[in-house]
Amino acid sequence: MTRPTDPHALLGPAKAEARAGADEGGVPIGAALFTLDGTLLGRGRNRRVQDDDPIMHAETAAFRNAGRRPHYRDTIMVTTLSPCWYCSGLVRQFGIGGLVIGEAATFSGGHDWLAAAGVDVTILDDPDCTALMETFIRERPALWFEDIGAPADEN
Amino acid sequence: MTRPTDPHALLGPAKAEARAGADEGGVPIGAALFTLDGTLLGRGRNRRVQDDDPIMHAETAAFRNAGRRPHYRDTIMVTTLSPCWYCSGLVRQFGIGGLVIGEAATFSGGHDWLAAAGVDVTILDDPDCTALMETFIRERPALWFEDIGAPADEN
Repeated sequence: MTRPTDPHALLGPAKAEARAGADEGGVPIGAALFTLDGTLLGRGRNRRVQDDDPIMHAETAAFRNAGRRPHYRDTIMVTTLSPCWYCSGLVRQFGIGGLVIGEAATFSGGHDWLAAAGVDVTILDDPDCTALMETFIRERPALWFEDIGAPADEN
Repeated sequence: MTRPTDPHALLGPAKAEARAGADEGGVPIGAALFTLDGTLLGRGRNRRVQDDDPIMHAETAAFRNAGRRPHYRDTIMVTTLSPCWYCSGLVRQFGIGGLVIGEAATFSGGHDWLAAAGVDVTILDDPDCTALMETFIRERPALWFEDIGAPADEN
Protein backbone atom coordinates (compact mmCIF):
# COMPACT_ATOMS: atom_id res chain seq x y z
CA MET A 1 0.00 0.00 0.00
CA THR A 2 1.29 3.44 -0.84
CA ARG A 3 0.50 6.20 1.60
CA PRO A 4 0.70 9.62 -0.01
CA THR A 5 -0.73 11.40 3.03
CA ASP A 6 1.20 12.29 6.21
CA PRO A 7 -0.29 10.11 8.99
CA HIS A 8 0.12 12.93 11.53
CA ALA A 9 -2.14 15.12 9.41
CA LEU A 10 -4.78 12.36 9.34
CA LEU A 11 -4.96 12.25 13.15
CA GLY A 12 -6.68 15.65 13.51
CA PRO A 13 -10.34 14.63 13.10
CA ALA A 14 -9.92 11.59 15.38
CA LYS A 15 -8.36 13.76 18.10
CA ALA A 16 -11.19 16.29 17.78
CA GLU A 17 -13.70 13.43 18.19
CA ALA A 18 -11.86 12.14 21.27
CA ARG A 19 -11.83 15.60 22.87
CA ALA A 20 -15.55 16.01 22.14
CA GLY A 21 -16.18 12.67 23.81
CA ALA A 22 -14.26 13.80 26.89
CA ASP A 23 -16.29 17.01 27.02
CA GLU A 24 -19.51 14.95 26.90
CA GLY A 25 -18.42 12.74 29.80
CA GLY A 26 -17.85 9.78 27.49
CA VAL A 27 -14.97 7.47 26.71
CA PRO A 28 -12.45 9.81 25.01
CA ILE A 29 -11.53 7.80 21.92
CA GLY A 30 -12.03 9.08 18.37
CA ALA A 31 -11.55 7.66 14.90
CA ALA A 32 -11.86 8.53 11.23
CA LEU A 33 -11.86 6.57 7.98
CA PHE A 34 -10.01 8.05 5.00
CA THR A 35 -9.19 7.05 1.46
CA LEU A 36 -5.48 6.55 0.72
CA ASP A 37 -5.26 10.05 -0.74
CA GLY A 38 -6.59 11.61 2.45
CA THR A 39 -10.28 12.09 1.65
CA LEU A 40 -12.35 11.85 4.83
CA LEU A 41 -15.11 9.23 4.49
CA GLY A 42 -16.47 9.25 8.03
CA ARG A 43 -15.51 10.17 11.59
CA GLY A 44 -16.90 9.28 14.98
CA ARG A 45 -16.26 8.74 18.68
CA ASN A 46 -17.02 6.18 21.33
CA ARG A 47 -20.70 6.63 22.27
CA ARG A 48 -21.14 4.12 25.11
CA VAL A 49 -22.20 6.86 27.52
CA GLN A 50 -23.80 9.28 25.09
CA ASP A 51 -26.08 6.70 23.41
CA ASP A 52 -25.96 4.05 26.15
CA ASP A 53 -24.67 1.79 23.38
CA PRO A 54 -21.98 -0.83 24.05
CA ILE A 55 -21.16 -1.49 20.37
CA MET A 56 -20.40 2.09 19.45
CA HIS A 57 -16.66 2.25 19.78
CA ALA A 58 -14.83 5.04 17.96
CA GLU A 59 -13.82 2.86 15.02
CA THR A 60 -17.27 1.35 14.52
CA ALA A 61 -18.81 4.84 14.74
CA ALA A 62 -16.45 6.17 12.06
CA PHE A 63 -17.02 3.07 9.91
CA ARG A 64 -20.79 3.45 10.16
CA ASN A 65 -20.63 7.15 9.37
CA ALA A 66 -18.63 6.39 6.22
CA GLY A 67 -21.68 4.56 4.86
CA ARG A 68 -21.87 1.29 2.97
CA ARG A 69 -19.01 0.56 0.58
CA PRO A 70 -18.39 -2.48 -1.64
CA HIS A 71 -14.85 -2.84 -0.26
CA TYR A 72 -12.27 -1.04 1.92
CA ARG A 73 -8.94 -1.97 0.37
CA ASP A 74 -8.22 1.68 -0.43
CA THR A 75 -9.03 3.05 3.03
CA ILE A 76 -7.12 3.93 6.21
CA MET A 77 -8.62 3.73 9.69
CA VAL A 78 -7.22 6.39 12.01
CA THR A 79 -7.85 6.01 15.73
CA THR A 80 -6.55 7.82 18.80
CA LEU A 81 -5.92 4.52 20.66
CA SER A 82 -4.75 1.03 19.71
CA PRO A 83 -7.91 -0.78 18.56
CA CYS A 84 -9.41 -3.38 20.88
CA TRP A 85 -10.07 -6.90 19.51
CA TYR A 86 -13.57 -5.89 18.47
CA CYS A 87 -12.34 -2.97 16.38
CA SER A 88 -9.28 -4.92 15.19
CA GLY A 89 -11.69 -7.56 13.93
CA LEU A 90 -13.57 -4.84 12.03
CA VAL A 91 -10.36 -3.73 10.31
CA ARG A 92 -9.42 -7.30 9.40
CA GLN A 93 -12.83 -8.49 8.21
CA PHE A 94 -13.40 -5.52 5.95
CA GLY A 95 -9.87 -5.55 4.56
CA ILE A 96 -9.05 -1.98 5.59
CA GLY A 97 -5.58 -1.45 4.14
CA GLY A 98 -4.02 0.95 6.62
CA LEU A 99 -4.23 1.70 10.33
CA VAL A 100 -2.88 4.87 11.98
CA ILE A 101 -2.87 4.83 15.80
CA GLY A 102 -2.48 7.89 18.01
CA GLU A 103 -1.00 5.90 20.89
CA ALA A 104 -0.69 2.34 22.15
CA ALA A 105 0.85 3.12 25.56
CA THR A 106 -2.29 3.21 27.73
CA PHE A 107 -3.92 0.22 25.99
CA SER A 108 -2.66 -2.31 23.46
CA GLY A 109 -5.26 -4.18 21.41
CA GLY A 110 -4.87 -6.15 18.19
CA HIS A 111 -2.56 -3.95 16.14
CA ASP A 112 0.30 -6.49 16.03
CA TRP A 113 -2.16 -9.16 14.89
CA LEU A 114 -3.34 -6.82 12.14
CA ALA A 115 0.20 -6.03 11.04
CA ALA A 116 0.90 -9.77 10.83
CA ALA A 117 -2.19 -10.08 8.63
CA GLY A 118 -0.83 -7.49 6.21
CA VAL A 119 -2.37 -4.23 7.45
CA ASP A 120 0.01 -1.24 7.18
CA VAL A 121 0.16 -0.08 10.84
CA THR A 122 1.65 3.22 12.04
CA ILE A 123 1.80 4.22 15.72
CA LEU A 124 2.32 7.94 16.24
CA ASP A 125 2.98 8.15 20.01
CA ASP A 126 0.91 11.32 20.16
CA PRO A 127 1.17 12.90 23.64
CA ASP A 128 -2.29 14.52 23.49
CA CYS A 129 -3.92 11.13 22.87
CA THR A 130 -1.99 9.57 25.74
CA ALA A 131 -2.86 12.40 28.12
CA LEU A 132 -6.58 12.13 27.33
CA MET A 133 -6.59 8.42 28.13
CA GLU A 134 -4.41 8.70 31.24
CA THR A 135 -6.77 11.28 32.72
CA PHE A 136 -9.84 9.24 31.79
CA ILE A 137 -8.56 5.94 33.18
CA ARG A 138 -7.50 7.65 36.43
CA GLU A 139 -10.81 9.44 36.88
CA ARG A 140 -13.29 6.82 35.62
CA PRO A 141 -11.75 3.35 35.87
CA ALA A 142 -15.07 1.46 36.07
CA LEU A 143 -16.32 3.01 32.83
CA TRP A 144 -13.04 2.21 31.09
CA PHE A 145 -13.05 -1.42 32.24
CA GLU A 146 -16.67 -1.76 31.12
CA ASP A 147 -15.78 -0.40 27.69
CA ILE A 148 -13.14 -3.09 27.15
CA GLY A 149 -15.05 -5.88 28.86
CA ALA A 150 -12.51 -6.14 31.67
CA PRO A 151 -14.22 -6.44 35.07
CA ALA A 152 -12.65 -4.08 37.59
CA ASP A 153 -11.97 -7.00 39.97
CA GLU A 154 -9.59 -8.45 37.39
CA ASN A 155 -7.58 -5.24 37.07
CA MET B 1 -17.39 -23.13 31.89
CA THR B 2 -20.37 -25.32 32.66
CA ARG B 3 -23.26 -25.30 30.23
CA PRO B 4 -26.51 -26.41 31.83
CA THR B 5 -28.59 -25.49 28.79
CA ASP B 6 -28.94 -27.61 25.62
CA PRO B 7 -27.27 -25.59 22.83
CA HIS B 8 -29.84 -26.77 20.29
CA ALA B 9 -32.57 -25.18 22.40
CA LEU B 10 -30.64 -21.90 22.47
CA LEU B 11 -30.58 -21.69 18.66
CA GLY B 12 -34.31 -20.98 18.28
CA PRO B 13 -34.34 -17.17 18.70
CA ALA B 14 -31.31 -16.74 16.43
CA LYS B 15 -32.97 -18.85 13.70
CA ALA B 16 -36.17 -16.82 14.02
CA GLU B 17 -34.12 -13.62 13.60
CA ALA B 18 -32.37 -15.03 10.53
CA ARG B 19 -35.67 -16.00 8.93
CA ALA B 20 -37.10 -12.54 9.65
CA GLY B 21 -34.04 -11.02 7.98
CA ALA B 22 -34.59 -13.18 4.91
CA ASP B 23 -38.24 -12.10 4.76
CA GLU B 24 -37.14 -8.45 4.88
CA GLY B 25 -34.70 -8.89 1.99
CA GLY B 26 -31.72 -8.61 4.29
CA VAL B 27 -28.70 -10.76 5.10
CA PRO B 28 -30.27 -13.83 6.80
CA ILE B 29 -28.10 -14.15 9.89
CA GLY B 30 -29.47 -14.02 13.43
CA ALA B 31 -27.97 -14.09 16.91
CA ALA B 32 -28.92 -14.03 20.58
CA LEU B 33 -27.03 -13.49 23.83
CA PHE B 34 -27.93 -15.67 26.82
CA THR B 35 -26.75 -16.19 30.35
CA LEU B 36 -25.27 -19.62 31.10
CA ASP B 37 -28.58 -20.78 32.57
CA GLY B 38 -30.44 -19.93 29.36
CA THR B 39 -31.91 -16.52 30.15
CA LEU B 40 -32.23 -14.46 26.98
CA LEU B 41 -30.47 -11.10 27.31
CA GLY B 42 -30.87 -9.80 23.77
CA ARG B 43 -31.47 -10.96 20.20
CA GLY B 44 -31.00 -9.39 16.80
CA ARG B 45 -30.28 -9.86 13.11
CA ASN B 46 -28.03 -8.44 10.47
CA ARG B 47 -29.48 -5.02 9.52
CA ARG B 48 -27.19 -3.91 6.67
CA VAL B 49 -30.09 -3.63 4.27
CA GLN B 50 -32.88 -2.76 6.69
CA ASP B 51 -31.02 0.14 8.38
CA ASP B 52 -28.44 0.77 5.64
CA ASP B 53 -25.90 0.14 8.41
CA PRO B 54 -22.64 -1.74 7.75
CA ILE B 55 -21.79 -2.34 11.42
CA MET B 56 -25.04 -4.06 12.36
CA HIS B 57 -24.16 -7.71 12.03
CA ALA B 58 -26.34 -10.23 13.84
CA GLU B 59 -23.98 -10.60 16.80
CA THR B 60 -23.48 -6.86 17.28
CA ALA B 61 -27.25 -6.33 17.05
CA ALA B 62 -27.88 -8.96 19.75
CA PHE B 63 -25.07 -7.55 21.90
CA ARG B 64 -26.47 -4.02 21.62
CA ASN B 65 -29.97 -5.20 22.42
CA ALA B 66 -28.71 -6.91 25.58
CA GLY B 67 -27.80 -3.48 26.94
CA ARG B 68 -24.70 -2.39 28.83
CA ARG B 69 -23.22 -4.93 31.23
CA PRO B 70 -20.14 -4.71 33.44
CA HIS B 71 -18.81 -8.01 32.07
CA TYR B 72 -19.83 -10.99 29.89
CA ARG B 73 -18.01 -13.95 31.45
CA ASP B 74 -21.33 -15.64 32.24
CA THR B 75 -22.86 -15.23 28.78
CA ILE B 76 -23.19 -17.33 25.61
CA MET B 77 -23.39 -15.84 22.12
CA VAL B 78 -25.56 -17.91 19.81
CA THR B 79 -25.38 -17.21 16.10
CA THR B 80 -26.76 -18.94 13.02
CA LEU B 81 -23.41 -18.66 11.17
CA SER B 82 -19.74 -18.83 12.13
CA PRO B 83 -18.86 -15.29 13.27
CA CYS B 84 -16.76 -13.13 10.94
CA TRP B 85 -13.57 -11.55 12.31
CA TYR B 86 -15.49 -8.43 13.34
CA CYS B 87 -17.95 -10.41 15.43
CA SER B 88 -15.26 -12.82 16.63
CA GLY B 89 -13.38 -9.78 17.91
CA LEU B 90 -16.51 -8.71 19.79
CA VAL B 91 -16.70 -12.11 21.51
CA ARG B 92 -13.02 -12.03 22.42
CA GLN B 93 -12.80 -8.42 23.60
CA PHE B 94 -15.81 -8.69 25.87
CA GLY B 95 -14.83 -12.05 27.27
CA ILE B 96 -18.03 -13.84 26.24
CA GLY B 97 -17.59 -17.31 27.69
CA GLY B 98 -19.47 -19.50 25.22
CA LEU B 99 -20.24 -19.50 21.49
CA VAL B 100 -22.91 -21.66 19.85
CA ILE B 101 -22.87 -21.67 16.03
CA GLY B 102 -25.69 -22.88 13.81
CA GLU B 103 -23.39 -23.77 10.94
CA ALA B 104 -19.88 -23.09 9.68
CA ALA B 105 -20.19 -24.78 6.28
CA THR B 106 -21.14 -21.80 4.10
CA PHE B 107 -18.70 -19.41 5.84
CA SER B 108 -15.95 -19.92 8.37
CA GLY B 109 -14.86 -16.91 10.43
CA GLY B 110 -12.87 -16.74 13.64
CA HIS B 111 -14.35 -19.57 15.70
CA ASP B 112 -11.12 -21.63 15.81
CA TRP B 113 -9.24 -18.51 16.95
CA LEU B 114 -11.81 -18.01 19.70
CA ALA B 115 -11.60 -21.65 20.80
CA ALA B 116 -7.81 -21.29 21.03
CA ALA B 117 -8.37 -18.22 23.22
CA GLY B 118 -10.49 -20.25 25.64
CA VAL B 119 -14.04 -19.66 24.39
CA ASP B 120 -16.26 -22.76 24.67
CA VAL B 121 -17.33 -23.22 21.01
CA THR B 122 -20.09 -25.57 19.81
CA ILE B 123 -21.00 -26.00 16.12
CA LEU B 124 -24.43 -27.52 15.59
CA ASP B 125 -24.44 -28.22 11.82
CA ASP B 126 -28.06 -27.11 11.66
CA PRO B 127 -29.50 -27.81 8.18
CA ASP B 128 -32.00 -24.91 8.33
CA CYS B 129 -29.20 -22.40 8.94
CA THR B 130 -27.16 -23.84 6.09
CA ALA B 131 -30.12 -23.78 3.69
CA LEU B 132 -30.88 -20.12 4.48
CA MET B 133 -27.31 -19.08 3.68
CA GLU B 134 -26.98 -21.26 0.59
CA THR B 135 -30.09 -19.71 -0.91
CA PHE B 136 -29.00 -16.20 0.03
CA ILE B 137 -25.46 -16.52 -1.36
CA ARG B 138 -26.81 -18.01 -4.61
CA GLU B 139 -29.44 -15.30 -5.07
CA ARG B 140 -27.61 -12.21 -3.81
CA PRO B 141 -23.84 -12.74 -4.04
CA ALA B 142 -22.94 -9.03 -4.26
CA LEU B 143 -24.77 -8.25 -1.01
CA TRP B 144 -23.12 -11.18 0.73
CA PHE B 145 -19.62 -10.18 -0.42
CA GLU B 146 -20.29 -6.59 0.69
CA ASP B 147 -21.36 -7.83 4.11
CA ILE B 148 -18.05 -9.61 4.66
CA GLY B 149 -15.89 -7.00 2.95
CA ALA B 150 -14.93 -9.38 0.15
CA PRO B 151 -15.13 -7.65 -3.23
CA ALA B 152 -16.97 -9.80 -5.77
CA ASP B 153 -14.01 -9.67 -8.17
CA GLU B 154 -11.95 -11.57 -5.60
CA ASN B 155 -14.49 -14.35 -5.26
